[in-house]
Amino acid sequence: MSNLKAPVVILNFKTYLESSGENALELAKALESASAESGITMVAAPQAIDIYKIKEETGIPVLSQHIDAVSPGGHTGSNLFESFVESGIDGSLLNHSEKRMTLADIAAVTKMLEDEKLISCICTNNVETSVAAATLSPTYVAVEPPELIGTGIPVSKADPEVVSGSVDKVKAIDKNVSVLCGAGISTGEDMAAAIELGAEGVLLASGIIKAESPKDALLDLVSKI
Amino acid sequence: MSNLKAPVVILNFKTYLESSGENALELAKALESASAESGITMVAAPQAIDIYKIKEETGIPVLSQHIDAVSPGGHTGSNLFESFVESGIDGSLLNHSEKRMTLADIAAVTKMLEDEKLISCICTNNVETSVAAATLSPTYVAVEPPELIGTGIPVSKADPEVVSGSVDKVKAIDKNVSVLCGAGISTGEDMAAAIELGAEGVLLASGIIKAESPKDALLDLVSKI
Amino acid sequence: MSNLKAPVVILNFKTYLESSGENALELAKALESASAESGITMVAAPQAIDIYKIKEETGIPVLSQHIDAVSPGGHTGSNLFESFVESGIDGSLLNHSEKRMTLADIAAVTKMLEDEKLISCICTNNVETSVAAATLSPTYVAVEPPELIGTGIPVSKADPEVVSGSVDKVKAIDKNVSVLCGAGISTGEDMAAAIELGAEGVLLASGIIKAESPKDALLDLVSKI
Amino acid sequence: MSNLKAPVVILNFKTYLESSGENALELAKALESASAESGITMVAAPQAIDIYKIKEETGIPVLSQHIDAVSPGGHTGSNLFESFVESGIDGSLLNHSEKRMTLADIAAVTKMLEDEKLISCICTNNVETSVAAATLSPTYVAVEPPELIGTGIPVSKADPEVVSGSVDKVKAIDKNVSVLCGAGISTGEDMAAAIELGAEGVLLASGIIKAESPKDALLDLVSKI
Repeated sequence: MSNLKAPVVILNFKTYLESSGENALELAKALESASAESGITMVAAPQAIDIYKIKEETGIPVLSQHIDAVSPGGHTGSNLFESFVESGIDGSLLNHSEKRMTLADIAAVTKMLEDEKLISCICTNNVETSVAAATLSPTYVAVEPPELIGTGIPVSKADPEVVSGSVDKVKAIDKNVSVLCGAGISTGEDMAAAIELGAEGVLLASGIIKAESPKDALLDLVSKI
Repeated sequence: MSNLKAPVVILNFKTYLESSGENALELAKALESASAESGITMVAAPQAIDIYKIKEETGIPVLSQHIDAVSPGGHTGSNLFESFVESGIDGSLLNHSEKRMTLADIAAVTKMLEDEKLISCICTNNVETSVAAATLSPTYVAVEPPELIGTGIPVSKADPEVVSGSVDKVKAIDKNVSVLCGAGISTGEDMAAAIELGAEGVLLASGIIKAESPKDALLDLVSKI
Repeated sequence: MSNLKAPVVILNFKTYLESSGENALELAKALESASAESGITMVAAPQAIDIYKIKEETGIPVLSQHIDAVSPGGHTGSNLFESFVESGIDGSLLNHSEKRMTLADIAAVTKMLEDEKLISCICTNNVETSVAAATLSPTYVAVEPPELIGTGIPVSKADPEVVSGSVDKVKAIDKNVSVLCGAGISTGEDMAAAIELGAEGVLLASGIIKAESPKDALLDLVSKI
Repeated sequence: MSNLKAPVVILNFKTYLESSGENALELAKALESASAESGITMVAAPQAIDIYKIKEETGIPVLSQHIDAVSPGGHTGSNLFESFVESGIDGSLLNHSEKRMTLADIAAVTKMLEDEKLISCICTNNVETSVAAATLSPTYVAVEPPELIGTGIPVSKADPEVVSGSVDKVKAIDKNVSVLCGAGISTGEDMAAAIELGAEGVLLASGIIKAESPKDALLDLVSKI
């Protein structure tokens, strides 16, 4: 897959009841519908167990939330990379703050995704780790100071230089890597501020998942860009 | 779900190419067909990502290979217990030697499964840990000396007192807990020996998965009981 | 080492500045002195790096906070069991809520300690896991509901049946196993309540470590028994 | 501490019986003596539990094998960074293949070491991860293809472009970062080949630890440079 049209909105479904099972499918449809209405690229990142159903019933791009760096063999409890590919994913989040990976594993899975021309989105926690991640040439680096995740305080406001600094230094390493802004983003103002700082999209979760109407929240999110 | 009719054959699909994606579905159908022909209970334990498809297209009992002890919330990269339930699983393997769990998590997920009347199968590595697991009143304790897994050397031959000792001491703790025999089982003789030692079934993997005809291998497996 | 004279006070030094390096040695001396004055057994559980110095300069019993289940070989970053033995430890805490272990590893290290006649203290989080731990015949099971650790709310008050239930059921499994009461214990009243519920001692940390005078806090702790 | 004089020999003691407890002290003395005789910088990386004794009784530079990215507080089973500093370490290995760390933790501990002017040596598994590590400006990047560790097959022979490629690309990121060559190095010829490829030293373990005379083995190691 070639890169998605910027700006992108990636919704990490995490493991909320509101984004699991049947609700995951509903949420994916809300993303699809908000994307059609707004013309903005929107991407679902559901739990592994929910991927097949969403790929079957929607046309939205789907990322896995994580992929273990395992090869075919005896790895009970993991999902094989080849199984993800066969399920039709468009790529994967990697190294989310709730599922940190070793450097060796981040590099290995980023390479596996690249070899299949799939999207890789490496999550990082500050400028330093964003730069390190950029050397691996992922599609995206999503910078999220962990202390802001789930707070509703947007990183673009609390710590704008984390975003602009990541953009500057990531582009200096590899201009093909796009920086996404995560952590605390939920409103149209937050997203506009992120874009202004040089981000080419956002990675977000509970602010949309727990909204009364996720679709309306998504439309609001992209209303100022 | 009430207990499955003994003896049971549980096939851990692990992460082999032969048991992933479309191949997982084929394998589940082989199990279903071998079960119908032999009258012996056979159970599939596929990767989480393959569960939905197998539940949709077969009628075979399905266990997850593992369940994380997480509650609804922010646990990127996990699958929620409630998602598994919604997917229609009949239960789960827990604490496989390739995915060991903490004692606290084994206890928590065994309880979650019990509350939903689902099957729990705690894998253990020796008599001592089988006894400890039995105090948690799972449906099954599957004893597998890790050094024998994938060797083709059946525990029933290499170390029969691990099986008989587990049966005796597990039953002394809770007579409703059934002991399964894992590690190295692949032939009809192996399974017959396991049953003779008091096991109420077997947990197996590569010996069947990598057989030229998994269905024939399954029929051979249950041919001597 | 034969069991310690009940009741015992085990102080988990954790990784506070007040209980690290030179401060660890001071704290061990406070324990030694409070033990001499009160006649109550008191035990230090310092960081691995601080064990040698404390064994050299005090006569107090010392437990490690954790031991990895590794054999001699290539395990960079671990400390070998044999290194702990050589350092003169009297035993170890295992499976603390801040360092949970797999069931297989708890069983393996408990056995290694028993073979060297050293003390094993398995931490657990509720009655069910206390019972499972008791089947491994450790010296102590220290029950600590994790939600109370560091709160100052004693488990003996918040959830007394966790203590009394653990005592009853642990003794039913193996009457030689002693139950300790952890989580939130800091005053003489807390400890007296724990003993009343059948505990044969306490495991505690920040309440003493962060006291203005740890020695006075320890003397207060044992003043009502 | 300013950088050590190149070339350096770092001996990872791991958890062998030959490099634990009293044997660790003997081995450190062999390093000290071989260093004095040869004039080559030699560094010990013992288990945490053995650090104090080695610092007390030798004058050799000492690295920890690993440091957890924890702050003062409740982290039972870890050693605090401040405890390591107080023990007198000169720095630490990080991210060894037997103790991989998350990218966030590698970055955090590298920064902690830098702030104390201590040596950081980040272990990596290939050119890509060496480059990523170099962006964090550690003192050393030690490249070790994991499949060669402990084999006696030197990376300088089996896969020389991993070493030369790491040197070229690491220097392009930050010319102050030195590349060390690990995995399979044990003879004078191996070390000379590594230096020829641009490495500024070696990281090694079992080849020396298990030698009949570690001191002689060390002298042989540096005999061709």
